[in-house]
Amino acid sequence: MNGPVIRYILGYVLKLEAALMLFPCITAVCYGEGEGFSYLAAAIGTFLLGFLMSHKKPKNFVFYLKDGCVATALSWIFLSIFGAVPFLLTGEIPAVEDALFETVSGFTTTGASILNDVEALSHTSLLWRSLTHWIGGMGVLVFLLAIIPLSGGSNINLMRAESPGPSVGKLYPKVKNTARILYIIYFGMTIIQFILLLIGHMPLFDSICTSIGTAGTGGFGIKNDSLASYSPYIQWVTAIFMILFAVNFNAYYYILYRKFKQAFQMEEVRCYFIIILAATAFITWNILPLSDGLFDALTQSIFQIGSLVSSTGFSSTNYDTWPYASKTILVLIMFIGACAGSTGGGIKVSRIILLLKTMLKELNSYIHPKSIKKIKLEKKPVEHEVVRSTNVYFITFMLIFAVSVFLISLEGEDLVTNFTAVIATLNNMGPGLSKVGPSANFSHLNAFSKAVLMFDMIAGRLELFPLLILFHPALWKDFYCARKTAWKRRRGEK
Amino acid sequence: MNGPVIRYILGYVLKLEAALMLFPCITAVCYGEGEGFSYLAAAIGTFLLGFLMSHKKPKNFVFYLKDGCVATALSWIFLSIFGAVPFLLTGEIPAVEDALFETVSGFTTTGASILNDVEALSHTSLLWRSLTHWIGGMGVLVFLLAIIPLSGGSNINLMRAESPGPSVGKLYPKVKNTARILYIIYFGMTIIQFILLLIGHMPLFDSICTSIGTAGTGGFGIKNDSLASYSPYIQWVTAIFMILFAVNFNAYYYILYRKFKQAFQMEEVRCYFIIILAATAFITWNILPLSDGLFDALTQSIFQIGSLVSSTGFSSTNYDTWPYASKTILVLIMFIGACAGSTGGGIKVSRIILLLKTMLKELNSYIHPKSIKKIKLEKKPVEHEVVRSTNVYFITFMLIFAVSVFLISLEGEDLVTNFTAVIATLNNMGPGLSKVGPSANFSHLNAFSKAVLMFDMIAGRLELFPLLILFHPALWKDFYCARKTAWKRRRGEK
Repeated sequence: MNGPVIRYILGYVLKLEAALMLFPCITAVCYGEGEGFSYLAAAIGTFLLGFLMSHKKPKNFVFYLKDGCVATALSWIFLSIFGAVPFLLTGEIPAVEDALFETVSGFTTTGASILNDVEALSHTSLLWRSLTHWIGGMGVLVFLLAIIPLSGGSNINLMRAESPGPSVGKLYPKVKNTARILYIIYFGMTIIQFILLLIGHMPLFDSICTSIGTAGTGGFGIKNDSLASYSPYIQWVTAIFMILFAVNFNAYYYILYRKFKQAFQMEEVRCYFIIILAATAFITWNILPLSDGLFDALTQSIFQIGSLVSSTGFSSTNYDTWPYASKTILVLIMFIGACAGSTGGGIKVSRIILLLKTMLKELNSYIHPKSIKKIKLEKKPVEHEVVRSTNVYFITFMLIFAVSVFLISLEGEDLVTNFTAVIATLNNMGPGLSKVGPSANFSHLNAFSKAVLMFDMIAGRLELFPLLILFHPALWKDFYCARKTAWKRRRGEK
Repeated sequence: MNGPVIRYILGYVLKLEAALMLFPCITAVCYGEGEGFSYLAAAIGTFLLGFLMSHKKPKNFVFYLKDGCVATALSWIFLSIFGAVPFLLTGEIPAVEDALFETVSGFTTTGASILNDVEALSHTSLLWRSLTHWIGGMGVLVFLLAIIPLSGGSNINLMRAESPGPSVGKLYPKVKNTARILYIIYFGMTIIQFILLLIGHMPLFDSICTSIGTAGTGGFGIKNDSLASYSPYIQWVTAIFMILFAVNFNAYYYILYRKFKQAFQMEEVRCYFIIILAATAFITWNILPLSDGLFDALTQSIFQIGSLVSSTGFSSTNYDTWPYASKTILVLIMFIGACAGSTGGGIKVSRIILLLKTMLKELNSYIHPKSIKKIKLEKKPVEHEVVRSTNVYFITFMLIFAVSVFLISLEGEDLVTNFTAVIATLNNMGPGLSKVGPSANFSHLNAFSKAVLMFDMIAGRLELFPLLILFHPALWKDFYCARKTAWKRRRGEK
């Protein structure tokens, strides 16, 4: 394991986080809030540590997939720990586990909150919460790759560990350019949503927080009722952008370069929209008797489906009161999740497509045992390795799911609460049902349950394995051996 | 597709079923119940049809895996349809969908009932219900293989389609001998349990029904409170035999031939007992405050765990009132299920082991990407094909699970009911939780939901694919083409 490079990357991550903390400081100045000093102090402390860690440039920049995974997992853990400090300093979230939960939930774009009264928070902290979504959505390391000079060429391993989906599409031969174009599209779309919200007479601060929260498919609202009190126009804009941010960004790349045919031929994106249309049609019909007419039912259903399929987690209504058939669809949609290569969570549409095709292939093999047809996606045969890793991903996902539900159940909540709390965090969704539903929050859980859910959030965001290998003894054995050799060599040099 | 052989096999299945219907007739004679006439009529009708279907011996006995699957799936559907006739004739279950549900539940060893008052049934029908478990447990085609002269050598495909587990272990080179030794062990163990129950002063009729219900890991009780009103001795005997019948039968084969070392080295069996011990320890501790002392808690927990891990579904208490942590463990155990090569249902312990090892292998590949270690089970490397098919099995299982939960949810029951109704049927368990819990039953569901659950029960018993391919268009296209060619040839011959 290349320890020095990991240290160096972590240092940069902390410096970046320190820089980001200046945005809440600016907010504090605008609103004259004293909380700004806490953020400034946290920023200075974080920067100093980051500076110390990245001061000494490593000699050897080569790193492998495991180094990429470890660097990514540790980056997210560091980000969360230091990101929680301001909440503690301002005293707005006094308990350590709560502050950590809120920050992990922010960076992983989950949006599950422990706050009973969001509106009591200062503007400074509200902005910080939403900002963590924005930076977490596209990925902090992807951002770093776009700006810092990580020479060596093996930095695709960093991107691979952080980007969602079964395979990482390099849009450009150079990782740096890929990372840049992704952030340009991301930033552009955020701005468009921001302007559209302003046009709908949403206050400036609300527009900023809502648009960056939507872009990251996060879900922290700045009101206690999330987006329920805003106008239908604002709800529609947000619903559409939630859906758009969960589309595979390659589609936008194609559109940007006028390759419209390629964009519209993307099988995953088409399936994604079919799922949304089918679910909306069904739920609109199902909740019609509960709503004020067809338009209201349509608004509610498209908003909730957009919110859950994209794993954002904003709510415009308490869908826990919907009929069970609709709730079941919502739970299934939570599992399916967004497209790969987007900011959304969940198992991902392309994985579900691959799983379905794997099943059909098996069925076919019963009828035509000698057939050697390969599974195809977007009319191209899928590499065996991708199919295999998708299967393994699904298996691991369900195993983590089962273990987490058991661990949470030790606290004694009901089955629906435990079940959907884990779905909501592992898929980076936000609210679940029952006691963690849209009109409730996660504050009543004990510290152990919160720790399990924090693990699930990071595991979900990093697509399981980068976080899991941190717990693999072989990794630390390797690390220890490498260190020992280095010490011996150094002693030999003397 | 070899139509004539399938017809021939189906004919034999019906003749066998007709013969089995004579047992309830004998019961009717003993108890002087008029219901015996209905069973006799059903037996005669079934025999005649079976005789007609198997009268003409097919010329060509070669059949492939798909023929085996189709023959198996159709056998189980035929068995269920004709097995339901006596319930309708006696009028004890007047609705067609209910009679069918009860029979499917019986043959698939699920034990989910639609009867509100089991004790109102005649002895004749009670015996028939329990008998369906016994014959369904080891498999009706395995039984046929043991007795009928299906020459041709390709009959391993029948056994493969009907036997539970990722790979079929042939104990003898000849399928016929394997099938025979399995039924001998099965019969022997049933007799031992029967005698032990008699020793515990259980009435003769109850002992017969309980022991054949346990052997098939079925779960139809003959009392409204299942086994709750019997003595702790009877509950312990039943608990131990439920656990024993869910052990891989290869272990008993080894013990029978004094290969004790091989028996005790079976990784699956050891894991199975570890799961039972761990779950029992936890649940005993968890329900201690609700019980009359340690012995009572231990009896309850070992009974329920044995009942659910073996997918039997007898109950000695209403475990729906247990703490949520215990209920979560019960749900997880339902998914894990029994050992492969036993009469039990569920995903199977060996598959879970393989899934876990697949996950660990993936983790290792992150750390040592060039390692080519194979997954091992029982110290032998597992063939890639077995690992692959296990993964596909799990994926298909979860997909069927998700679709079924959605279809059931259309009826509007709560999430826990829908969720556990599907678990309980797809795993051939029996009772679920909430409105389909141990103190409730499935009668209140509508016909559509019952149809979905019947599909799940047969899919679960036949391990998904044999039933699924019946719905594959390619199969029927092949069949149609083959028929057409045969007609043409016949016309040409003239």
